[in-house]
Amino acid sequence: MMITGKNYIGNQNSAKGDKIFTTFNPLLDKNNDWKITEATPEEIEEAVSLATSAFKEYSQLSGKKKASFLRAIAEEIESLGDNLLEVYCAESGLPQGRANGERGRTLGQLRAFANHLEDGNWVEATIDTAQPDRQPLPKVDLRKMNVALGPVVVFGASNFPLAFSTAGGDAAAALAAGCPVIVKSHPMHAATGEMVASAIVKAAEKTGMPNGVFSNLNSNGNDVGQQLVLNENIKAVGFTGSLKGGRALYNLAATRKEPIPVFAEMGSVNPVVLLPKSLENRAESIAKTYAGSITLGAGQFCTNPGLIIGIKSEGLTNFTNNLASDIKEVAPSCMLHPNIANAYYKNKETALNQNGVAVLADISENVPSNFAAQAVITVSGAEFLKNPTLHHEVFGPFSLLVQCGDKAELEEVIANLEGQLTGTVIADDNELENYRTVVSELQNKVGRIIFNGVPTGVEVCPSMLHGGPYPASTDSRFTAVGVDSIKRFVRPFSFQDWPNNLLPEELKNENPLGILRTVNGVKTDKEI
Amino acid sequence: MMITGKNYIGNQNSAKGDKIFTTFNPLLDKNNDWKITEATPEEIEEAVSLATSAFKEYSQLSGKKKASFLRAIAEEIESLGDNLLEVYCAESGLPQGRANGERGRTLGQLRAFANHLEDGNWVEATIDTAQPDRQPLPKVDLRKMNVALGPVVVFGASNFPLAFSTAGGDAAAALAAGCPVIVKSHPMHAATGEMVASAIVKAAEKTGMPNGVFSNLNSNGNDVGQQLVLNENIKAVGFTGSLKGGRALYNLAATRKEPIPVFAEMGSVNPVVLLPKSLENRAESIAKTYAGSITLGAGQFCTNPGLIIGIKSEGLTNFTNNLASDIKEVAPSCMLHPNIANAYYKNKETALNQNGVAVLADISENVPSNFAAQAVITVSGAEFLKNPTLHHEVFGPFSLLVQCGDKAELEEVIANLEGQLTGTVIADDNELENYRTVVSELQNKVGRIIFNGVPTGVEVCPSMLHGGPYPASTDSRFTAVGVDSIKRFVRPFSFQDWPNNLLPEELKNENPLGILRTVNGVKTDKEI
Repeated sequence: MMITGKNYIGNQNSAKGDKIFTTFNPLLDKNNDWKITEATPEEIEEAVSLATSAFKEYSQLSGKKKASFLRAIAEEIESLGDNLLEVYCAESGLPQGRANGERGRTLGQLRAFANHLEDGNWVEATIDTAQPDRQPLPKVDLRKMNVALGPVVVFGASNFPLAFSTAGGDAAAALAAGCPVIVKSHPMHAATGEMVASAIVKAAEKTGMPNGVFSNLNSNGNDVGQQLVLNENIKAVGFTGSLKGGRALYNLAATRKEPIPVFAEMGSVNPVVLLPKSLENRAESIAKTYAGSITLGAGQFCTNPGLIIGIKSEGLTNFTNNLASDIKEVAPSCMLHPNIANAYYKNKETALNQNGVAVLADISENVPSNFAAQAVITVSGAEFLKNPTLHHEVFGPFSLLVQCGDKAELEEVIANLEGQLTGTVIADDNELENYRTVVSELQNKVGRIIFNGVPTGVEVCPSMLHGGPYPASTDSRFTAVGVDSIKRFVRPFSFQDWPNNLLPEELKNENPLGILRTVNGVKTDKEI
Repeated sequence: MMITGKNYIGNQNSAKGDKIFTTFNPLLDKNNDWKITEATPEEIEEAVSLATSAFKEYSQLSGKKKASFLRAIAEEIESLGDNLLEVYCAESGLPQGRANGERGRTLGQLRAFANHLEDGNWVEATIDTAQPDRQPLPKVDLRKMNVALGPVVVFGASNFPLAFSTAGGDAAAALAAGCPVIVKSHPMHAATGEMVASAIVKAAEKTGMPNGVFSNLNSNGNDVGQQLVLNENIKAVGFTGSLKGGRALYNLAATRKEPIPVFAEMGSVNPVVLLPKSLENRAESIAKTYAGSITLGAGQFCTNPGLIIGIKSEGLTNFTNNLASDIKEVAPSCMLHPNIANAYYKNKETALNQNGVAVLADISENVPSNFAAQAVITVSGAEFLKNPTLHHEVFGPFSLLVQCGDKAELEEVIANLEGQLTGTVIADDNELENYRTVVSELQNKVGRIIFNGVPTGVEVCPSMLHGGPYPASTDSRFTAVGVDSIKRFVRPFSFQDWPNNLLPEELKNENPLGILRTVNGVKTDKEI
C-alpha cells in the first residue's frame, strides 16, 4: 500500500493540517521520504465525537461480534505482507527478524483477545437472586457484569512499533472491552502506524463496526496528545514510554473536572540479585546469559536488566570479570532513533561520572552513528545508597553492578529501590530459603519476580503481570500484557430487579452464552 | 467501657496532643461530655511506621488467620453490647433501631469477608505451566495471584458511624486484603469510633495480629488526614463523604511523588425516571413509595432520590400532587449534626431560589433544632438544562422533580447529568422497550440501574455495585459495597519459574487450599 501520511478520522483519511514531519531511518542515518501530516484540533475533535457516538453501538455488541472484528484486524495486518516489515525496519533500525517476531506477537495478542471474548467469562457475571420473603426486608434481584468504560486514547510506544502501538496490546484490550480507540501514533514510526491503521479500518468496515470505533492521529509534539487527554468524552488512557511522559499525562488527567485513569507503563531498572552460592558454582554462565540480556534489542526493552546486585566475594569478582569480557564481544546494534541514541549516551555519561563509579566495559570505539555502545559499570552498595542518580534507568544496553559489603547492605539496597516491573533472583538449590527477607523486600517492589532467569522476554499469557509499583507503572493493580489487561478498560455494573428479557445475554436466567457465573455464591454455568 | 478520647497508635492508647474537641448530640442540641484528643504529627508518624512494619507479617498471613481476626472483631463489637448503640445515638441523633440495624450490617460485612477469605478464590490464581520444548523459544512457568497493596488510610463517614467507619466496609475490605488500616475517625462520632477501635485492638491481640495492623486517629480538622495521605508509606485511601472532601484528597494523592489510588464515594442525586404508563396506572402508589424513600433517615443516604424526571401528562400531575401531600405527612427527623442541618437548609434555599423553580412541599414550621424540614420542588426540563446549580446534590430529605416537554427532552436531561451511583426507571410491563435509548443514556451515567424500586437500601452482596462514574466516585472500576470491594486494595503479582516449595499455598502444584484456579486456560480445583 502507499503511505499517504494522512490521519484516519474514523474510516476517513484526512490531512487538513499544515504541520508536516518525517520519520527517520537510523540505519541509513537519513530521513524517510514519507510526509506525515499532524492532526488538527478540528480533526481531533471529530475523532472524539465519532468515537463517542460509536461507543453507544460498539459497547453493546456481543463478544462474538467484537471477536470477529479483532480476528479481521489480524487478517488485514497479515495481508499487508512483508511491505509492513520493510516500513517497520526503515522507521526503527530494528532487524527483519525482530519485525517478524513482533508482528507474530501482535497477531497473537489480537487472537488471544478474540478467544477471550468468545469464551465470555471475562465479564465476571455475578448474580444474587431475589428473596421476596426475607425478614425484616425483602431481598432484591441483583446482577453484575463488566461493561465498557468509554472511548480510550492509546499512545504508541517508540520501542514496539507493532506490539505496543496502533493495534498493539493497549488498543486490542480496549477494543475487546467494547471501547472505541483513538491512537496517538508514535512520531518515530508514523508510516508503520498508518499501515496498521488502514488494516484496522478495513477490518472495521468488513465486519460492520460503527464508524469511529477507531481513529489514528499523527503528531510530532505534545499538543495532540494533550488535547485528547483533556477531552471530556475520553474515559481512559493507555501509554507506554518514559517516566517523564507518562507522569505528565497522569498529571494532566488528574486536573480534569472528571479525572480519568491513565495506565502508563514507564519501564524500570529491573534489579537482578545474585546470591553467593550461584556465583560460586556458575559465575561464567550467569555472566554470559546476562551479557545477552543486557544487549538484547540494543537494550531497548522496559524489562532490560539495568541493575545487578551482589555481595562481594570471589564469585562476584569472577562474575564481574566474565561479564566485562562477554559484553565486549557483543556487536553493537542500531538504536531506534538519533534522539534515543543521544539520550542513551547522555544518561550513560551521567552515570559514569558519579562518585565511586568504575567502568567494567564501555565499547565506544568504531561504533556507527545511532548505534549503541554497550556498557557495564560498577559501584559499592554504600555509594549506591547515597546517590539517587544511580537508581535511574539508562534506556539502552547498559547495566550497573552494585557490590554490597554483606547481606544486610544487600537488603538495604533493595529496600531503597523504587517500584519495578520485575525483580530477578539468581540462586542455587535451597539457597533462596536463607534469603527470605531479601526476597520479601524485593517482592514489595516489583510486579513480577523471576527465579534463575532473565527479565527480558515477556510471555504473553493470562498469568503474566506486566506492570508494578510506581514508577514502573501508574497503577500497580493492572497488567499491560495478557488478556487480563482488558480489566483496565471496564467497570462493573449492576442491574437491580431488571426484566429478564432486557438483560444482557450474560445475565439472563437461561444463560444463553453458557458462561461461568457466580450465582448466589456458587460458580456455575447452569441456567437459573 | 469508658470513653477516654484517646487515639489508638497500634495497640496503645495515646493522647500526646493538646487539641481537644467534643462531639455533639443533635437530639438534645448540646455537646457530649467526652473530651476527644486530636492525634499529633508524631503519633501519626508512629501509626504509619507501625503499619509499615506490620504489613510485612500481616500481608503474608493465610486467609484463615485473617478470617479469624475479622470474626474476632465482629465478636468484640457484639461484646460492647447496647452501650455502643447508646453512644452511637448520642453522637448521631439517629434512632436506636437504625443503630441496631447498622451494627448488624457491620457484623455481617466483617463475616462476609471472613467467608470470602476462607473460600480463598478471591486471589484469582492463574497458572500457565512451563513448556521447555516450545519453539522457537521455551515457555517459562508463570503463576499470578492478588497480593495486598500496603498500609491503607480509611476516613470514617459522617452518615454511617458503624457500617462505613472504624470497622466498616472500607476497613474490613482492606484488612481482608492483607493491608494494615489506619482510620481517620470521623469527628462527629469519635466516641463511637473509639469503642469500635477498642474492639478491633482486642481482636488483634486475641488472634495474635502484629502490632500496627490497626490504628485509630482522632481529628477535628484536615491536618491529620492530609498528613496521612501524603505519607509515602500509605498505599491507598478509602473515603465516603462530600465531593469537595473526596476531590481534595484525590488531588492531594495525585501530587505525591508516588501517586496512590483514592477511592472516594461521594454521593449523587440518583435520578429516577418515571415513564408515562406507570404514572397513568399507579401514580398514587409511586408517590407514596417515593415520599418514604426521600425522607428515609432524614435523607442522609448517598442513594437518596434527589432528582425525579418525568414527561408532562395527567399522570405526572397526579404523581406531583400526591407526592406533595404525602411528603407533608412525614414527621421530620433529626439530622446528624448542626453543620449538616445548616448545610441542608442553605443548599435547599439555593435550589429554591433558582429561576423557574416552584415549591411543591416545604415543611418549615415547628421543626425542632437540627431537624430537617423535607421539601420537594419542581422545574421544567428546559430550565433544568440551562442551570447546572440544579444538578447539585442537596444532602437531606429533598428532591427536585423535573417536568420534561417530551421524550426527546427527557433523553437530553439524562444525557446532561453527571455520573451517579444509581439510576431508577419506573415503568409498566413492556413500556421499557420503547425507551431503550433513554435507558442506554442512563446506564452510561450510573453504577447501578434499578427497575421499579427505590435507590435507597443498598444490599450487601457480591453482585452489588456501589460506585459509579465521577463524581459519584473517583474510580468507577470498583465497588465500595460487597466482597468485591477487596479488589481496591490488592494488586496482581506474578512468580516466574519460582520453586514450588517457596510459592504461596494458593499457587503450589498440590493446590493445598483446594481453591478454584485457572490452569493453562481452564478453571479447575485440581492439583497440577
